Amino acid sequence: MRALILNCTLTARPEQSNTEALVDVVAAAMRQEGIDVDVVHVADNDVKPGVSDGEGDEWPAVLALLRNAEILVIATPTWRSQPSSIAERVLERMDALIAETDEQGRPFAYNRVGGIVVTGHEDGAHYVIAEVARSLIDIGYTVPGQAWTYWNMGPRPGPSYLETDHEHDWSERTGRTAAANLVAVARALAEGPMPAPAE
Amino acid sequence: MRALILNCTLTARPEQSNTEALVDVVAAAMRQEGIDVDVVHVADNDVKPGVSDGEGDEWPAVLALLRNAEILVIATPTWRSQPSSIAERVLERMDALIAETDEQGRPFAYNRVGGIVVTGHEDGAHYVIAEVARSLIDIGYTVPGQAWTYWNMGPRPGPSYLETDHEHDWSERTGRTAAANLVAVARALAEGPMPAPAE
Amino acid sequence: MRALILNCTLTARPEQSNTEALVDVVAAAMRQEGIDVDVVHVADNDVKPGVSDGEGDEWPAVLALLRNAEILVIATPTWRSQPSSIAERVLERMDALIAETDEQGRPFAYNRVGGIVVTGHEDGAHYVIAEVARSLIDIGYTVPGQAWTYWNMGPRPGPSYLETDHEHDWSERTGRTAAANLVAVARALAEGPMPAPAE
Amino acid sequence: MRALILNCTLTARPEQSNTEALVDVVAAAMRQEGIDVDVVHVADNDVKPGVSDGEGDEWPAVLALLRNAEILVIATPTWRSQPSSIAERVLERMDALIAETDEQGRPFAYNRVGGIVVTGHEDGAHYVIAEVARSLIDIGYTVPGQAWTYWNMGPRPGPSYLETDHEHDWSERTGRTAAANLVAVARALAEGPMPAPAE
Repeated sequence: MRALILNCTLTARPEQSNTEALVDVVAAAMRQEGIDVDVVHVADNDVKPGVSDGEGDEWPAVLALLRNAEILVIATPTWRSQPSSIAERVLERMDALIAETDEQGRPFAYNRVGGIVVTGHEDGAHYVIAEVARSLIDIGYTVPGQAWTYWNMGPRPGPSYLETDHEHDWSERTGRTAAANLVAVARALAEGPMPAPAE
Repeated sequence: MRALILNCTLTARPEQSNTEALVDVVAAAMRQEGIDVDVVHVADNDVKPGVSDGEGDEWPAVLALLRNAEILVIATPTWRSQPSSIAERVLERMDALIAETDEQGRPFAYNRVGGIVVTGHEDGAHYVIAEVARSLIDIGYTVPGQAWTYWNMGPRPGPSYLETDHEHDWSERTGRTAAANLVAVARALAEGPMPAPAE
Repeated sequence: MRALILNCTLTARPEQSNTEALVDVVAAAMRQEGIDVDVVHVADNDVKPGVSDGEGDEWPAVLALLRNAEILVIATPTWRSQPSSIAERVLERMDALIAETDEQGRPFAYNRVGGIVVTGHEDGAHYVIAEVARSLIDIGYTVPGQAWTYWNMGPRPGPSYLETDHEHDWSERTGRTAAANLVAVARALAEGPMPAPAE
Repeated sequence: MRALILNCTLTARPEQSNTEALVDVVAAAMRQEGIDVDVVHVADNDVKPGVSDGEGDEWPAVLALLRNAEILVIATPTWRSQPSSIAERVLERMDALIAETDEQGRPFAYNRVGGIVVTGHEDGAHYVIAEVARSLIDIGYTVPGQAWTYWNMGPRPGPSYLETDHEHDWSERTGRTAAANLVAVARALAEGPMPAPAE
């Protein structure tokens, strides 16, 4: 079983991404469960706006990994309490998957699961979780209970994740729980899959 | 396996609720799958504000049904593009369930699934779906892919569901798909359950 | 000029509401500007669900104050990253004001301004601000720039406002700014009012 | 007085954008009020992700127009009930304006107003309005009452704006009202401006 974590940070390599630090915890927990985990730093790829599978940019390479992954995690910083524009673009490009079905007529994302990792300078994580979860559910992903973790230190614009130790324990433990929940539900759906939509 | 549909319409009995008309489709589809379905017209019950299991009102009776149900559907009209205040109150009272665990340390809602039914005079369903889905996921419910249906007729405040036939077919078919997805994922989780949260 | 602050806390009197502590700062700042400020503890009033001006409950008394106020502040705790069900109910009942116009055909809320105060145990304030602001704008209230303040201490469910001094300074200063912005824009609209809607 | 409308459609020139058709109504109504209106088709510009004023792309040219405009309208299609990734990117880049103040210490966006135009295939406009309005208010823009218009035709993914005449009248009239409200509040703020934030 494979997982893909799309790190949608704005931080360019080689600077360390705050989001990546929390992503690492989730990835490690999934690997301990025997999952193959790919992590893509989306900002390294040229992803153009649009709602098609696309050509002329690097989305097809990301999409190829996404097609192989039963587990998808969208990891994003918050800016203005929103996902990064890179996360939005990824979800926008995934729009094309809504109409894609397998040989049994099931949408692409059925029997796949999605989760969310958020880091921010400030309040906003629940807003981001709501938005990303709803997008994933629309496309057909199942979002397991408590399949997310986040970190910020409100109120007010405050330090970044890597600038403090404040409550890392909680965010990391919550991230390990999210990883376990994603793996458990992905495995349950592999054994007991969803049917094709109603006629 | 049991399902509970909480119809959070503002419409008082015996007037027919628009939301109920679409709820009936989802309930029938679940019953065809062999599920026992309870539908509660929440407005008939005195549910006070708060975040406790409560006493002194009729929430405990609703909660007793909720405890027996592996499948929960929140059905709500939209007003100002939001869930009804009755739906918000139900979710507020369910807050107490976050801290409740079974003998294995798993939150109450683990291995239960949640879905959403929305009817409105106007645009707003996706806003409601986002909000209710996020609340359910926070509490620990798993939200299956495409486990919702909705109806409205935008733009502008328009007719109610029962006042027109416009696109009922789509909303009903989407409702049957939601029912099937809820049942499939609930059964998958019964066979392959989620573990207790990480230490 | 008059302001009404609706404190939508779940906390029953005489226990002190966390939200009230931050409300007091905003109210004091408005009074210093010469504004008459009423603060209503909504939980003390029986407000039934619905979208009518109503009778048979205590909403009409709240509504009478609301009609006199050029400035409205919705103050609410966050539960599950949402406004309290009391705040939702207030906004739901305000729905009736959308169709109410003055002798010049202007919706009730034109030339009135709205703001938001949020306190919580955890991340979620921006979600609440978005939801309340959009509701107020729909009804016709103008929401001035940065007309809100909030407090919480993420990540994870943490202490209440009154249990810590953490960053009170920021939330209070932001609250004084919100008060000043509400007063300035209310005064500007009194001098240069919005017209009736387009035919 | 100047207005800037940022059309954040995904549609590449020279194909006609659905969003542009509704934008034209809002622009015409503002011009009738004597406002100079610029409309920028953002997709024609290379705007990179990030939260800085930037260099190395075409954002600075858009930003120059934005600095001259007392009125800003974000116009966007909905995809997955969200603003386009182009709209998100614009708002992300505007994040840099939060910290920018004038000689009196007032944030850049104080005394400027913002509005929203949305077109979509499906339900989602109110979600978009909430998100964009909150972002603008955070930055310091004032959002006048009912300063938005939208069009879609729910439920289900349906026709585009230009493919049908369904309820164009309502969306256009609502757009003219939004234009009038934006102009009126911008003028009121020019006469009676907001002060610098509290110390």
